[in-house]
Amino acid sequence: MISKNGVKKLCEKAKEASRGLALLDSGAKDKALISMGKAILANSSYIINENKKDLETAKRIGLSDALIDRLTLNGPRIISMANSLISIAKLKDPVGEIVEKIRRPNGLLIKKVRVPIGVILIIYESRPNVTSDCIGLCLKSGNAVILRGGSEAVNSNIAIFNILQAQARKHAMPEGAISIIKDTGRWVVDELLMQSGIIDLVIPRGGESLIKDVTEKSRIPVIKHYKGVCHTYVDEGADIKMAKAICLNAKVQRPGVCNAMETLLVNRKIAKRFLPSMIKLFKDAGVEIRASKEVRRIVPGIKLATEEDWYTEYLDLILSVNIVKDADEAIKHIMKYGSYHSDAIVTNNKRNAEKFLKEVDSACVYVNASTRFTDGGVFGKGAEMGISTDKIHARGPMGIEELTSYKYVIYGRGQIRK
Amino acid sequence: MISKNGVKKLCEKAKEASRGLALLDSGAKDKALISMGKAILANSSYIINENKKDLETAKRIGLSDALIDRLTLNGPRIISMANSLISIAKLKDPVGEIVEKIRRPNGLLIKKVRVPIGVILIIYESRPNVTSDCIGLCLKSGNAVILRGGSEAVNSNIAIFNILQAQARKHAMPEGAISIIKDTGRWVVDELLMQSGIIDLVIPRGGESLIKDVTEKSRIPVIKHYKGVCHTYVDEGADIKMAKAICLNAKVQRPGVCNAMETLLVNRKIAKRFLPSMIKLFKDAGVEIRASKEVRRIVPGIKLATEEDWYTEYLDLILSVNIVKDADEAIKHIMKYGSYHSDAIVTNNKRNAEKFLKEVDSACVYVNASTRFTDGGVFGKGAEMGISTDKIHARGPMGIEELTSYKYVIYGRGQIRK
Repeated sequence: MISKNGVKKLCEKAKEASRGLALLDSGAKDKALISMGKAILANSSYIINENKKDLETAKRIGLSDALIDRLTLNGPRIISMANSLISIAKLKDPVGEIVEKIRRPNGLLIKKVRVPIGVILIIYESRPNVTSDCIGLCLKSGNAVILRGGSEAVNSNIAIFNILQAQARKHAMPEGAISIIKDTGRWVVDELLMQSGIIDLVIPRGGESLIKDVTEKSRIPVIKHYKGVCHTYVDEGADIKMAKAICLNAKVQRPGVCNAMETLLVNRKIAKRFLPSMIKLFKDAGVEIRASKEVRRIVPGIKLATEEDWYTEYLDLILSVNIVKDADEAIKHIMKYGSYHSDAIVTNNKRNAEKFLKEVDSACVYVNASTRFTDGGVFGKGAEMGISTDKIHARGPMGIEELTSYKYVIYGRGQIRK
Repeated sequence: MISKNGVKKLCEKAKEASRGLALLDSGAKDKALISMGKAILANSSYIINENKKDLETAKRIGLSDALIDRLTLNGPRIISMANSLISIAKLKDPVGEIVEKIRRPNGLLIKKVRVPIGVILIIYESRPNVTSDCIGLCLKSGNAVILRGGSEAVNSNIAIFNILQAQARKHAMPEGAISIIKDTGRWVVDELLMQSGIIDLVIPRGGESLIKDVTEKSRIPVIKHYKGVCHTYVDEGADIKMAKAICLNAKVQRPGVCNAMETLLVNRKIAKRFLPSMIKLFKDAGVEIRASKEVRRIVPGIKLATEEDWYTEYLDLILSVNIVKDADEAIKHIMKYGSYHSDAIVTNNKRNAEKFLKEVDSACVYVNASTRFTDGGVFGKGAEMGISTDKIHARGPMGIEELTSYKYVIYGRGQIRK
């Protein structure tokens, strides 16, 4: 159990550590990260044992299969955690990078230089790999990190943290650079969110209610990682075979994640040709279809979608299907019901593709590819802090660059302002 | 008088307009901006007449000279407003700029493309040029803007707005692209700050209490433009003549602004050589000195600084002066008492300069130049939305680039995730 004063002290220690972290050279950070990756592998049985405790509780209290899947750690998932740390170590250090160089007429040389943000608080649910991914990304970018995971994963998170903390100490990272809040009481989050001036940024990852709650209470800037109501629009000019492969992948490859498709939009002109066989594929894969009346006239015997369905992130083998007149109507649907996360058009019509890419105001817009690619690792960022649905500071998959701010460094020779 | 419903409608209209603005080509925006600049000049007597009304009220209610100075519009200031609009027109359009291009092993081409943020709300006090600067910067960067100026400048702000709005209409900018709230009731601000999901970003500019109030109440991301407790540290290795010129400039050239120096720190080893003549220069310029005991032993007869003085942004001809052992102690003082806005070192010692530039965690850090240069115009940004003291999204002078977000545009050839 932590006290109110204990929360404040932990935050202040992180602030103090962040000053030292900002000045570390890349080599020291990278060595620590590589050791961390190795230590994860070396201690995998300890992690799996602790994870079992969480899984037992989860089953006892009757968590859903999707949640249990997210909570589960096994060999491949532990290897992937270790690999993420090692690939983060291999990325170019963003700290100190000169983003822009301006020479002004009065001779002043202005350099815009990347610097760490400072202290970052992550509030997250379920997936325990978030613990190591966030520690890796924050350390690499010179930020101190405070972790507050969900109670359902508390044993797994603490196990992972302990392994990484031992390596951080061994490599002389500033004490307080990484910390975890073990107390799962809700008041602790409220107390953390009051620490403006100490914590610089809050990143909530999890369900809608968690994110709403954090945004309501926080006096610290928040980057929200909201839901993904992702669409695929199959245009008149689509390659039908490609469209089927993309749609199936976007829905069923891993339905419980935010970049999975939730709504399929089909151009009226190809609906009769496309929908019967597509819906059959979905049904064979166990997908429940909820569709508009027009879709049901083409493929009878499927459930009618309600207005609410179009807004819904199912995170499950359920898909809503609608027919639209053209790209414009598809864009309109997406802008009305979507969550501006990831949306795709399948088409061979270049004009429609460009229109869609320009006008759909989502973090990631695709032509002829599955929305499932929205991911920090896939984008080459090593891992991700999550996928921001905000437009301020960071949007889409957040990696180490998105964990930096900048400062202006100005070199003069005695210039004064006239 | 505006109603609660009226506020909501105005915001929704701005949102609608922002969609159109995002798609405008640069030529259309630039033409509108140039016409706006010309219209400001052509209507300068109208602006000056309306400004007189505000000045009369200001005098009647006894506003300070510093505030009246900020409120005052005259020939040169109107020309400068017009020039800002024209130089914004000449800047490269940030919208559509490809910031990064990534080709992934699976053949996906990922482009990171600049896009406008959407709807920006500016809440500001006094200076009426903020009205035209913010309209210019937001329009150029494809954002809709809602302005809420202070009651003390209401006539001036409305006059400037009316002139620019006529040009916006003439050039077929989307209706609602720029709007001003004329109702100066405080509840209107509270109502605006509830419009999350419609307004994308809030920028408050003004006194500390305004910014605190906005940050407390807002459910929308805020970029704060806080006070500037700016320092100049004169190091042992300083060119004394240069140091005097820089310090005098930083304090007296325009003391009422946020980048003016508020605290002078002097290395102990040169204090006796530097301080007597420096303080005489300040006194001759009408500056009141508040100093530490050690300073007073060198220059008798000056006021003792209190602990509070070190934290204070005077915005006036007052300066606090302290002696420090070395660059480390100067950095410590700045990190403790400063506001992380703009801080300078005067030195010929390269190691101390680099140490200071690296370790002082302020938006702008200078070597051998006056802090007065922290300014969007001076930095080549045409004008500024203000000077951010935040680290999230934008830091230091905010120009058009800082008014953009980005999206990922991904080109595939049927790729699906394995």
